[in-house]
Amino acid sequence: MLDKLRIVLIGTSHPGNIGGTARAMHNMGLADLALVAPRCEVYGSESHARASGADALVSSARVHASLEEAVSDCTFVVGASARVRHLPWPMLTPRALGERLPRECTPENARAALVFGREDSGMTNGELQRCHAHVHIPTNPDFSSLNLAAAVQVLAYECRLAALGADDAPDMPFGVEWDNPPATHDDLERFFEHLERTLIDIDFHDPDNPRQLMARLRRLFMRSHIDSMEMNILRGILGAVNKQRRASSRQEYHDGNG
Amino acid sequence: MLDKLRIVLIGTSHPGNIGGTARAMHNMGLADLALVAPRCEVYGSESHARASGADALVSSARVHASLEEAVSDCTFVVGASARVRHLPWPMLTPRALGERLPRECTPENARAALVFGREDSGMTNGELQRCHAHVHIPTNPDFSSLNLAAAVQVLAYECRLAALGADDAPDMPFGVEWDNPPATHDDLERFFEHLERTLIDIDFHDPDNPRQLMARLRRLFMRSHIDSMEMNILRGILGAVNKQRRASSRQEYHDGNG
Repeated sequence: MLDKLRIVLIGTSHPGNIGGTARAMHNMGLADLALVAPRCEVYGSESHARASGADALVSSARVHASLEEAVSDCTFVVGASARVRHLPWPMLTPRALGERLPRECTPENARAALVFGREDSGMTNGELQRCHAHVHIPTNPDFSSLNLAAAVQVLAYECRLAALGADDAPDMPFGVEWDNPPATHDDLERFFEHLERTLIDIDFHDPDNPRQLMARLRRLFMRSHIDSMEMNILRGILGAVNKQRRASSRQEYHDGNG
Repeated sequence: MLDKLRIVLIGTSHPGNIGGTARAMHNMGLADLALVAPRCEVYGSESHARASGADALVSSARVHASLEEAVSDCTFVVGASARVRHLPWPMLTPRALGERLPRECTPENARAALVFGREDSGMTNGELQRCHAHVHIPTNPDFSSLNLAAAVQVLAYECRLAALGADDAPDMPFGVEWDNPPATHDDLERFFEHLERTLIDIDFHDPDNPRQLMARLRRLFMRSHIDSMEMNILRGILGAVNKQRRASSRQEYHDGNG
């Protein structure tokens, strides 16, 4: 599916955004980059610097005079647009786009274009009306101007997820209301220190030959996502062990001196 | 929920990435940025330039000496890591993280940190073992090194979607508030009758040899989910065709009787 997707940038004015777009595309497995009437140097050092290893995408980017020309062979054209228009147009969320792309890319001749407008002024109404649908990345209403390469990154990421197959999320525990607040990081670190000291004291743990013991214990307790009451219980247990240990030390001392 | 999320960058070496992170955060409605032992100038012109309007986040970023210090009050710490470790650790996809965050952020004292490692070497094992879970952004295996600000952008986007509520797609046929109500079934049927009569009148359509013409037109117009104003426009066009047809018929009649 990813090989049927094209990223189209219209009138880009910062070469860094072309490089950043190439890097974001390559990271997500996209390779087809088209530039419409760029307003900056395309193949120079600045775009290559930001491409950072995805230079080949910049070098192979095709430059077109118009959006028409850049998407002439495309069967599905989606424009990234934040603006609300006088004439509403079918609008997709990035996720809905991801869900729809596999179907749109099924036909033999399918080719889908994701079109991004100018950094300063986006896409014209004429350009937006050449799209089958628009896609809007939900942003903070107080600060909605996404960096161009960042917008490409988000949509390319949704494309990659769609290509990998939708629901890859494993189900996690703790899906019920809990009876105690979670322990804080500080609580945990004090516990791990206490635990390690105790394990050394009772000759279970040799810091000179640690064999991943503390890492494994960390993993266990971090994974179980301890709450504050459990934390108190564990600290109480360690305290009890320490106390017994001190008592037996005193006993040994007394025995040794008896 | 977003006000309970902190982004933590460890040992960042490029000020542009601090600025880019601030911009990505502000775009997605995050505000709490912590920097652990940065290896570059934090508050200089380069980070502010890339922040591009999110300068306030850079200015208010707190600098810490260690990850410990940066997340000491956090109840849920997630490290962004691509590497597969010797000792497996609970791993989330970005989407699973988004699904889990609302629950993690429910407790009164909840504070969640998303931690990002160094541009060149990521997070150390010690740092990764201070996390409840790790999150991996699925990337092209041939080119997996995401730009730091781009990685923050992707996770911040998933956080925002999670905060908006899983299903952010407005429940509307076109995903956006439409300007006109949809046409009714009756409207459509009257239109199809009108269309068919008109096509017969203009000798485009032969009911004795229909060749699926009306079925194809039905499929086309049904699929586009016509609204009531569009319906009026189409009926108006048919009316105009009918009128012209009648005028030319009268002309033929007059011509025939001339």
